Amino acid sequence: MAGVQRVLGLDPGLRHTGWGVIETDGYRLRHLGHGVVGSDGNDELAQRLLQLYRGLVEVVEAWSPDQAAVEETFVNKNPVSTLKLGQARGIALLVPAAAGLPVAEYAPNLIKKTVVGSGHAGKEQIRAMMAVLLPGARIDNEHAADALAVAICHAHHRGPRQVAAAGLAAALR
Amino acid sequence: MAGVQRVLGLDPGLRHTGWGVIETDGYRLRHLGHGVVGSDGNDELAQRLLQLYRGLVEVVEAWSPDQAAVEETFVNKNPVSTLKLGQARGIALLVPAAAGLPVAEYAPNLIKKTVVGSGHAGKEQIRAMMAVLLPGARIDNEHAADALAVAICHAHHRGPRQVAAAGLAAALR
Repeated sequence: MAGVQRVLGLDPGLRHTGWGVIETDGYRLRHLGHGVVGSDGNDELAQRLLQLYRGLVEVVEAWSPDQAAVEETFVNKNPVSTLKLGQARGIALLVPAAAGLPVAEYAPNLIKKTVVGSGHAGKEQIRAMMAVLLPGARIDNEHAADALAVAICHAHHRGPRQVAAAGLAAALR
Repeated sequence: MAGVQRVLGLDPGLRHTGWGVIETDGYRLRHLGHGVVGSDGNDELAQRLLQLYRGLVEVVEAWSPDQAAVEETFVNKNPVSTLKLGQARGIALLVPAAAGLPVAEYAPNLIKKTVVGSGHAGKEQIRAMMAVLLPGARIDNEHAADALAVAICHAHHRGPRQVAAAGLAAALR
């Protein structure tokens, strides 16, 4: 595996799970794709999780990322929301792991701090900064913007050496 | 599909997910198997979820259930536990749904009330009642006992007609 790595970022949610794929050599970033995998709120929970699972499997198959990074979850909301998000998050962690990718996790504050410079940045700021960091990407969805931000955070915090080592480890698995 | 249905019960947990398989014609119950799928607490979260996933896929492949029932989760614990359990629960719901099974959910109190007669029964009472309801089953694990209790709860609340209809729906899917 060369120094260039494909990173899949995921922003989990039961209704909308954002995804974004970038390429990085540890210094430069290139936008490859992004989108949202959704589930139907009218369906039963198990079916909704299956919809997320199938959508994410398609994303991994389509983009063949080398590594994945998933946003960590706030747990200081109401417990019903935490449980829902946890269930969706389980799927978001499972799919890349089942594809043999290393899966990193990053706290929302670190992601914001990395891409905007402040741990308290708003959604609009993140989306605006994605347009700067990933010129040419037309990002019209906040979940996809968040997912790309996770991927960039991963590329930043795993420097070229760590990223290459992780990719190598995955290749040797 | 005949009137006899195989029900897979699941008691989700990140460290231990209990499973139990029974056969029922809507009146009688027969124990087929039970056990625990575990994950290694030293591994990263995504790997642990993958271990649960693979273990549960094996169970479904080995026993070919027609239907699944999963214990609902208390959310009035601490939020970190709720999130962890939610992630494991996402996997427990996904695996039978991905195999095309209808997946029902039951609250812990209803399960206890159904199998013991009281919504506040303790773990020992549930295990003892499993030995009565499923003679011949040697159940030495509380997670597996809880999983069998979910399966029995499902067999009880879906009468023979509903159970057969759900099985037919799954067969026609």
